[in-house]
Amino acid sequence: MKTLKTVLILAVSINCVAQKNDSIMLRRIFSEALMNGKCYSNLDYLSNKIGGRISGSPQAAKAVEWAEIAMKEANSDNVTKQECMVPHWVRGEKEKGEIVFKVETFAKGDKTVGRQRPSEPMNICALGGSVGTTKEGVTADVLEVKSVEELYKLGTDKIKGKIVFFNRPFDNSEIDPFDAYGKAVDQRWKGPSIAAKFGAVATICRSMTTRIDDFPHTGGMNYLDSIPEKIPACAISTKGAEYLSGLIKSGDHFKFHLKMNCQTLPDEKSYNVVGEIKGSEFPDEIIVVGGHLDSWDTGDGSHDDGAGVVQSIEVIRIMKALGIKPKRTIRAVAFMNEENGLRGGKKYAELAEQNKEKHILAIESDRGGFAPRGVTFEGSVEKRTKLKSWAPLLMPYGVYDFDRKGGGADISPLEKDAVPVMELYPEPQRYFDHHHTANDTFQSIDKRELEMGAATLAAIVYLADQYGF
Amino acid sequence: MKTLKTVLILAVSINCVAQKNDSIMLRRIFSEALMNGKCYSNLDYLSNKIGGRISGSPQAAKAVEWAEIAMKEANSDNVTKQECMVPHWVRGEKEKGEIVFKVETFAKGDKTVGRQRPSEPMNICALGGSVGTTKEGVTADVLEVKSVEELYKLGTDKIKGKIVFFNRPFDNSEIDPFDAYGKAVDQRWKGPSIAAKFGAVATICRSMTTRIDDFPHTGGMNYLDSIPEKIPACAISTKGAEYLSGLIKSGDHFKFHLKMNCQTLPDEKSYNVVGEIKGSEFPDEIIVVGGHLDSWDTGDGSHDDGAGVVQSIEVIRIMKALGIKPKRTIRAVAFMNEENGLRGGKKYAELAEQNKEKHILAIESDRGGFAPRGVTFEGSVEKRTKLKSWAPLLMPYGVYDFDRKGGGADISPLEKDAVPVMELYPEPQRYFDHHHTANDTFQSIDKRELEMGAATLAAIVYLADQYGF
Repeated sequence: MKTLKTVLILAVSINCVAQKNDSIMLRRIFSEALMNGKCYSNLDYLSNKIGGRISGSPQAAKAVEWAEIAMKEANSDNVTKQECMVPHWVRGEKEKGEIVFKVETFAKGDKTVGRQRPSEPMNICALGGSVGTTKEGVTADVLEVKSVEELYKLGTDKIKGKIVFFNRPFDNSEIDPFDAYGKAVDQRWKGPSIAAKFGAVATICRSMTTRIDDFPHTGGMNYLDSIPEKIPACAISTKGAEYLSGLIKSGDHFKFHLKMNCQTLPDEKSYNVVGEIKGSEFPDEIIVVGGHLDSWDTGDGSHDDGAGVVQSIEVIRIMKALGIKPKRTIRAVAFMNEENGLRGGKKYAELAEQNKEKHILAIESDRGGFAPRGVTFEGSVEKRTKLKSWAPLLMPYGVYDFDRKGGGADISPLEKDAVPVMELYPEPQRYFDHHHTANDTFQSIDKRELEMGAATLAAIVYLADQYGF
Repeated sequence: MKTLKTVLILAVSINCVAQKNDSIMLRRIFSEALMNGKCYSNLDYLSNKIGGRISGSPQAAKAVEWAEIAMKEANSDNVTKQECMVPHWVRGEKEKGEIVFKVETFAKGDKTVGRQRPSEPMNICALGGSVGTTKEGVTADVLEVKSVEELYKLGTDKIKGKIVFFNRPFDNSEIDPFDAYGKAVDQRWKGPSIAAKFGAVATICRSMTTRIDDFPHTGGMNYLDSIPEKIPACAISTKGAEYLSGLIKSGDHFKFHLKMNCQTLPDEKSYNVVGEIKGSEFPDEIIVVGGHLDSWDTGDGSHDDGAGVVQSIEVIRIMKALGIKPKRTIRAVAFMNEENGLRGGKKYAELAEQNKEKHILAIESDRGGFAPRGVTFEGSVEKRTKLKSWAPLLMPYGVYDFDRKGGGADISPLEKDAVPVMELYPEPQRYFDHHHTANDTFQSIDKRELEMGAATLAAIVYLADQYGF
C-alpha cells in the first residue's frame, strides 16, 4: 500500500513537472512567434510579390520556388518537392455582366416611338472551372430561384433558354459563418449542372458571404458528366444580387447579358513543397502541418491560404529557433491545388502510402489568419481526450475550443487512410468578408493574429510530438 | 427521505427547465442581434455622419442629440440626460514635427562652406490636454530615454533645455496587448510632468501600439501641480520613433522642431444620455450597461468607443424587440468624457448616490467592437461564481472567458461605491492598431463581430435580471 502511494505520488509529481515544463515551453513558443516571427514577412512576400496563384499559373510556379526557399530559411533539415499534374483554368479578360433593358415603346402624337434605358453593368466573376460564353456572350431572361431543388419543380418548360439566378442568402442566424456557407454553397457547386439539365443557358450565383457588399466571390463548381452541355456560370456580388432580385420583383423588362472568356487548358506540372525536421527517437512517426499554396486569382490569397502556408513553415522555424529536437518527424507541407482539384493533397497521401509512411497526426490551417480559438478534430474518442487534456496549457493564449469536428481539405485523403486530423480553428466571423474575392489581401491580415495562430500550431505539434498521438 | 428526494428531483428538474429556457432565450437574443441588428447602422451614423467627438466639441454635442434619438428608436421606456461640465481641449491646426539638421561646414579650397541637409517632417500629434508651443515652436536637441525613471538618474544637467523622447516599445511578448499598454503608458501619462521637473522643453512619446506603422496615437496626459511649467507633449508614430532613434544612434547632428497650437478652453456643458426599461418586479434594482460617447478627434472613434455606445443601446432594442419584460430596471448609458476627465462617469455615480439608487451590476463595453470572448469582473467571489455558472449558456457563442479581473473606466466611480462591475472582453489583438489614431474608423468594424458583442451584453443583462446579481 505504501509503495502504491509512493508510486502514485511520484506519478503525480512527474505529471506536474511535465505540465510545468510544457507550460514553460509553450510560453517560449508564443514569445518566439510574437517577438521574432517570420510568418508575417513571409506572407507579405507571397501576397505582395507573387500574388494570386491559381493552379497551373506562372504565379503558382513562383510560389513553389518561394516555398522551397522559405522552408530552407526556416532551417528545415531537408526540403523536397512532390510532383503532381494540376488543372489549369484561366479567367481570361475581365468578365462582363450587364442588365439590358428592353426597348419600351409609347405613343408620341400619332407616332410610336421607342425608348432604350441605358444598360447597367453588374459586378460579376466567373466561377472557377466554368466554360466561357461565345464571343458575343449570352443574353437571356433571368429566372430567380432560392434553391437547386426548386429547379426540379419548375422543370424544362420554365427554365429552357433562361439564365438561372441562384439567390438564397447566407443564414446569418448561424453563429459560425462556415455553417451558413455549408448551407448555401450547393447553389455554386452543383447549381450550374442542374440548371443545364433543364436547358438553362447560364447561371448567376449570389456570392457566398454574410455581408451585403460589392465583391463577387469566385469558387469551385462541378459539371456533372450527365449534363447535355456545360453552361457558363458566374457569381454576382450580394449587393448586385439584391439589386437584380429587386428589378425582377419590380416587373421591369430586361435581359441579362453575360460575357466570359475563361477556359480550361491542358493540365500543368506542379508541386507540393515539404520541409522536414527528422525525428530523433521515432523518425518513422510523422506529424504533418500544412496549408495550401494555390489560391484563387481574384485577390492575393492572403487568408486563403497564404496564412496557412506561412504558419506551417513557421512551426519548423520556431522549433529550430528554440532548439527543440522533436522525437518524431515534423513536416510542414505547402499543398498545391486545394481550390480546384485537390491534386496535391491526393498526391501526398498516395506517396505516403507508397512509401509506407506512418502519419500519427495531420493538421491543416485553412480558415484564415485570424486569432486562434482552438482546433477541430476527427479521430478516436481516446485521441480527442488526449487533445482535450492539453486545453489548460493553451487556455492562457485564448485557445479553448477542442470540441469541434472536422479536418482540412488537403489532409482529407490522409483522413481516409485513418490518420487523425485537425484543423486550426480561428475566429470565424470575418472569413467570408474575404474568401475568394479581390478583398482577400495582405492588408486584411493582422500580424499578431497570424502569429498567434502559428504559435498554436507549433504548440500542438510540440505536444503531439512529446506525448505521441 | 422520500419527500427530500422528490424535492431534490423537482429542484433539479426546475433547474434543467430554467437552463433550457435560458438557452432558448439566448439563442433568440443572438439571432435578433445578427438578423435585425441596428448597432452597425447606428455606428455608421455616429462615425460617418458625426465623426470624432472630443468632449466639448460641436461633434460631441451632436452625438448627445443623436444618442437621445437612438435610445428612443430602440424603444426605451424613457430617455434622460445628465448634465455635466466637461474639459474642452482643442487641437487647433495640424501639429508640425520636423528634424532639422545642423549646418555642416567643410573646407572647399581655402574657404569654409556650409551645407544644410533638408529638414525631414515627422508624423506626430499632440497628446490630449497638452499645452501648445509658442508661435515659433520649440527647437531643441533630443534626449532619448526608455523610461520615466531614467530621468531621475540623468538629472537636470543632462535634461535641461532638451526635448525628452520616451521610446520604450510595447512588450510584444505579452499575449494581451492591453497588458503591454499598461506597462508602457506611464511614458505618455506622467512622462511630460517628470521631464518638466528636470527642465525639459517638450516631450515626444513613442505611440502606444504593438505595430510598427505610421499612425501617431494621441491619448490623455497629466500635468502634476508640482511642476514649474507645463511643457508641450506629443506622440510620434512607431515608425517615426524607430527612425528618430536610429538617427540619434548614428550620431547625426540635428535638432527637433515642434509646433503645436492646441489649448484648453473653458469647460463646456455636456451630458450623459440614459435610456431605460423600467423593471416590472424590482424597479429599484438597476442594471447598467454603457460605453462612452466622447472619443478622441484623430479618427471617428468607431472602436473607442462608438462600438460600446451602440452595443449598449442595442441591449435595450433587443430586449424590447423580443418582448422581454425585465424584472429589474435596465439602463443603457452613453457616458460623456471618458477620454480626458471621466466627468460623465463621476456625474452618473454622484446622481446615483444622491437619488439613493441601488445598482446591482454595471457593465461597460470599451475594448473595441471585436468578436466577444468573455467579460472581466470585479466583485465578490460569490458573484464571480454566479457569473461563471452562466458560462455553459454562452459557450455556443464563443464566449468562454469569465476569469479576468477588471471593470471599465466610466463605471469605476460606481465600483468605488461597491457596485459589482464587468467589462465586455472582446478579442484583444487588433485594438491598438486603431486606438486613439486616424485609423480608428468605421471601415475597421466588422458587422457581425460588433453584433456578437451586443448580443453577449444583452445575454448577460438578461441573466443578471432573471436571477438577480
